[in-house]
Parts: sequence; C-alpha cells; structure tokens
Amino acid sequence: MALSAALLFFDFGANDKLLVVPELEFERAKVEARSGKVLDRREVGWVESKDGMAAWSAVAVHVLRQRGVSAVRISPHLPVAYYEALQKADVAMEIDHELFRERRRRKSREEASFIHAAQHATESACAEVIAHLAVSEIKDGLLWLDGRPLTSQRLMARAEAALAEIGYTGSQLIIAGSPENALPHYRGEGHLRAHAPIIIDIFPRGMTSGYRGDLTRTVVVGEVLDQVRAMWEASLAAMDAALALIKAGVNGRDVHLAACKVLVERGYGTYTKGFEGNLEGPRMTHSLGHGVGLDVHEAPSLRDLDYPLVAGDVVTVEPGLYLAGLGGVRVEDTGIVTADGFHNFTTLPKSLDPKAYL
Amino acid sequence: MALSAALLFFDFGANDKLLVVPELEFERAKVEARSGKVLDRREVGWVESKDGMAAWSAVAVHVLRQRGVSAVRISPHLPVAYYEALQKADVAMEIDHELFRERRRRKSREEASFIHAAQHATESACAEVIAHLAVSEIKDGLLWLDGRPLTSQRLMARAEAALAEIGYTGSQLIIAGSPENALPHYRGEGHLRAHAPIIIDIFPRGMTSGYRGDLTRTVVVGEVLDQVRAMWEASLAAMDAALALIKAGVNGRDVHLAACKVLVERGYGTYTKGFEGNLEGPRMTHSLGHGVGLDVHEAPSLRDLDYPLVAGDVVTVEPGLYLAGLGGVRVEDTGIVTADGFHNFTTLPKSLDPKAYL
Repeated sequence: MALSAALLFFDFGANDKLLVVPELEFERAKVEARSGKVLDRREVGWVESKDGMAAWSAVAVHVLRQRGVSAVRISPHLPVAYYEALQKADVAMEIDHELFRERRRRKSREEASFIHAAQHATESACAEVIAHLAVSEIKDGLLWLDGRPLTSQRLMARAEAALAEIGYTGSQLIIAGSPENALPHYRGEGHLRAHAPIIIDIFPRGMTSGYRGDLTRTVVVGEVLDQVRAMWEASLAAMDAALALIKAGVNGRDVHLAACKVLVERGYGTYTKGFEGNLEGPRMTHSLGHGVGLDVHEAPSLRDLDYPLVAGDVVTVEPGLYLAGLGGVRVEDTGIVTADGFHNFTTLPKSLDPKAYL
Repeated sequence: MALSAALLFFDFGANDKLLVVPELEFERAKVEARSGKVLDRREVGWVESKDGMAAWSAVAVHVLRQRGVSAVRISPHLPVAYYEALQKADVAMEIDHELFRERRRRKSREEASFIHAAQHATESACAEVIAHLAVSEIKDGLLWLDGRPLTSQRLMARAEAALAEIGYTGSQLIIAGSPENALPHYRGEGHLRAHAPIIIDIFPRGMTSGYRGDLTRTVVVGEVLDQVRAMWEASLAAMDAALALIKAGVNGRDVHLAACKVLVERGYGTYTKGFEGNLEGPRMTHSLGHGVGLDVHEAPSLRDLDYPLVAGDVVTVEPGLYLAGLGGVRVEDTGIVTADGFHNFTTLPKSLDPKAYL
C-alpha cells in the first residue's frame, strides 16, 4: 500500500475553500481538514489515467469551470504539467511567489503549541540517545553497550522507537560520530568513537499534527580534547549572542552575523562574507538557522539575507564548528519569535558530558 | 539542521550528465552519485536569495547558457517557477510526460537487488511486529504485553527500530486494528483488539540505496470469525490468481480483473466497473497493485487501466476486503516481472495466526 499525498486545494476567497482528495483519503480528510469543504475526486470529474497529473489537472479544470473561475493565482511549486493543462483550458494564471510562504510564517497559537509539543518529543528522543551514550563502555577507543558495538544505527533505532511510541516519526535524523561529522549533513553510520564529538540532530514530524521539532546536542564519551571544548564553548557563546538579539523587527541577517562575530572573535572562521575569519581552523559551514513548521526548512532564514523577523516566526538557532579530519560540534534550539524576545521551546541541558543529561 | 533535497539534474545526451548540488551536499554527492559530473552550485552562479526556486532557476539558466543549450525537455513535475524563469531567459521548453517514468520502470539488476534487499528488511520488521502479537495476552478483549496495553504505536516503534538498525526507515507504516482498518489508509493508533484482524503494512526506504520494499500481512490474536476467515481466504485466492497470470506482455488491467473476478465469484464486491459484485458486503476498495522503486508508488499500475507489463517492472500484488463496522484484511507481496512469470521477492508465510510466523 502506498499512502497517496496527491490532492487539490482551492481558495475561492471569503472563507470559501475546497479540498479534493482521492477516494481512499476522503473519510480521513473529512475528519482532519481544518477548514473548507472536502470532495472525493470522483465527484468532480476524476477519470483514471496512467498519467496521474493529467487526471488531476482535468479535475482542476472541471472545478474551475463549475465555479466559473477563469483566472487563478498559483503556487510556484505547482508542477508544470498542471500549468500546461490549465493553459490549454484557457485559465489565466499568475504565479504568486509569496503564496503560502508568508501565510505559513506567523504561527497561530495552535500551530505554536504543535511545534512546542514536537520539540518536547524531540528532547525526549535526544535524551534517550544520550542516556545510552552515558552508560556505554570504551574499549580500544570505541563505544560498546551490552557487549555489542554501539553504532549510529543502534542509536537511531532507539530514537525512532522512542519517537514512534509517542506519535512522531524521525526518519532523517543525524547521529554522527567524528571525524565524519565534519560534514554537517553526514547522517552517521557504524561503530562510534570515544574521546570525540558525537552530533545528535533530530527533527521529527508529528504523525497527527504534521508539525516538526528540531534539536541538536553534541556529546563526547571519554576525554574531551581542549580543541573540541573550545569549539563547543564558542558555539554556545554564539548561540547566546543570537538568542539575546532575536525579537520581532530584528533582521535575521543581523542575528546570523552576531553569531558569526562571536566565532571570528574566538579565532574561528565562517562561510559568511566579511566574517571569513581564520581560514585554516574550524569553521561554521552553514547558516545560523531556519524557520520550522510543517516543513523542517521554511521561512524565515537566519543567514546573510535580508529577512526581518515577525512575531510568530518559529526558528532554529544552530551554530556549529567543523574541521576536516577532526570532526564537528553543533548545538541547536528551536523557539518562537515574540514582540520582545524569543520564547525558547527547548529545555534540554547543554553539555558535552552525556552524564549531565541524566 | 534540515537535510536539503534541492538539486538540478541535466542530461546533455551522449552520457554527458551534470548534477548541481548545495555546498553542504557536495562531498556526499561526489561519493554517491552513480553517473555524471557533480558541481557545487556556487561554481555555476548561485546567489543566496529568500526565494530558493528563483536562485536555483538562475543556476539552471547559467548552466544552459554556459553549454550553449537553448531548448530543453523538462519533467512534468518541474515546479512552474522554473518554467517561468527559463521562459524569461528564452529557453525553449517541451514538457516530456514520459521523462524518467519509463526509464524508472525497467529495473536494472542492481536496482532489483536493492528492492529485493529492502523487501527482506521489510519482512524482518513485519515478523518482529507479529512476534510481539503472538506472545501478547488477551484481557477484556484487548491485547496486553509485559503488563502494558499493546498499541499500534508500540508496534510501530518496534518496527521502526528494527528497520533503523539495518539501515531502513519506515516512517509511514500501517499497523491498524479493527474496525478502523476498514479504511485501507488508516494508519492505526491506540489499544489493539483481540479476535479481530490487525493489518500490518510496511513500505520502508533504504537509507543508502533509496529503494523501497512493500509488504502486508493480516493477523488475528484470539478467535477468528468465520466471516474474517472467508475474507482472508478469498484475498489469498485473488492473490494466487493474479500471481499466476503475471509475466511480461500481460496487461496490468487483466491481472487486476483476474483478482476482482475471484472476489466477486466468492460473493464479495469491488470498486471496478463490471466487477461491482455484492454491494452490501466486504469489498476491495482499492486497486490490486502498483510499481515500487525509488518511490513506493510508481509505474506500472495493476488496476482498471491499459498497462502492458514489461520484464523488469517491480510490482506489488495486494488484494484486500473491507467492511465498515467490521474491519479489513489485506495481503501483499512484492516482486519482479520476468519474461515468463513473476519472481516474488517475498518469502514470509501467509497466515491469520501470528504463531504461524514464529
């Protein structure tokens, strides 16, 4: 069985909204859709076809004709097959590059509570992973638990199980040992090393709400190299500088640059123009943060880009430092921008020592 | 951290292919890309923008100009924002509705082995779930394990953990008790009931290969109602009829209709024209099967649609019967179409009795 995600959404204005869904999704959509009318696609001209998008396009034309609508604004994400079909049906189209983007930015109280709940779930999964690391043993520089090698996969399995039991799914999580975690998108695999940073980055989705959390901690089992501790402390200081600055009206760029400034002052580098810093040592090779909601990556950005924050933006703040051959550290919280500050949804401690989380 | 999936793929013909990826994905893409050249987007005109698709479109135009290409065939899935940007840059475009679709149908030996491996992983997760059901206890008509209620979520957690440890992710799996599983897309939640069918449908993705498996079993803990056993046996008979028919050159429609015919002959109904059968009792409310590959839903279809099968098609066969108020049963195998038959990738037993799987 495959869970089909295809559907059509029409907003005719004046609170007149319509969702057209496959017959298999109809009962569920009626229960779960938060606004508007729900129709089974067979009620509005669905004809089975090998070309699913052609069949859906025909339904779109059917609905628009039925409503007497001859001009629409469309999402820039709409597949071009729909554009072609609507054009052939003489529907005038304007691509609205802001459609949904700004609407999704300012989180309602309900949306904020979904993300807050997701962040709690994320914290519990992260704590579960770290608890396993805290009681692991070191043999020949590698981690062992219950007589078996402690691998990224075993910890991913623990995190996924912890998330699944409370209704979240974390399919792309990162549990990445050194030195490979010097690449921030390295997901992690194999036997984990002692005396070197392990990055745990979890961004699950609520199976019912659809909303995400996003959280990163870095821990070391065994001895912490001075170099790693200094990188960690610089990342924490960068986070503090960023969090102190965030409020509605502040530019996301300035938040990003404030974090970069702290890192450069401590002798590190970044990928940001004017804040390149030390080109030889550890660097922050990504942006400071991003919006979180239904997607784990949406507006606004905290990067070198003009992005004034608004109350209701939910963002991550995730400074990190990475050095090829050594590894990386990263720390990340998620919270909501308010009129006068930042309400951090995250309460998990921050420490390189896994025992500090117990 | 969010793992960005955005990239551009160009096929200039004569084995000249190009993949343009974000800087954070560059190292990984170089290792994992199976063909063609990989470029960091910053090498081909990337400029940071709030509008990610506008920025990517500019890269596409940059690459095409650099190569002196002024006309392209594009995927029908391409977001319309790209179409608009390329049109403004005077690139002639033709939407090729077959692009990738047919290329993805005939699985190479390597792809088939990836799906076969994914199906093995799926079987082990399904067996793990059923093993928990087999040793559960019945109290007051509900299932208990280790003194705690046995819920869909607990079993999903076990399945996700089993999958994660062997490198698969199964985020959308179905473990659905009766009577709610009368809706085939109901995923399942809460305390599971005894003496009623539980549908386990798992379709995970290989974290490294990207390919999927797809498998469904239905089991009952406790007494099996005669009505449920008859529905189960009819589903098995429908599967046997379908599997006996499949080979290259046979039409997917005929395979679907053969299964419908068995169900109707046994007194059930379907959603297929001419095979409506009994409208009051249990019915098959979905199609018989679909292609599996990188997606869990791709060409070809086994439904009331003209779709001649070719050698190398990987398809599911998944008859089921559902009755509102009672529940549903479904059984599903996945395998590959060959010149003279069907090589079933699935070896897990088929039984309503969870102990039969131990």
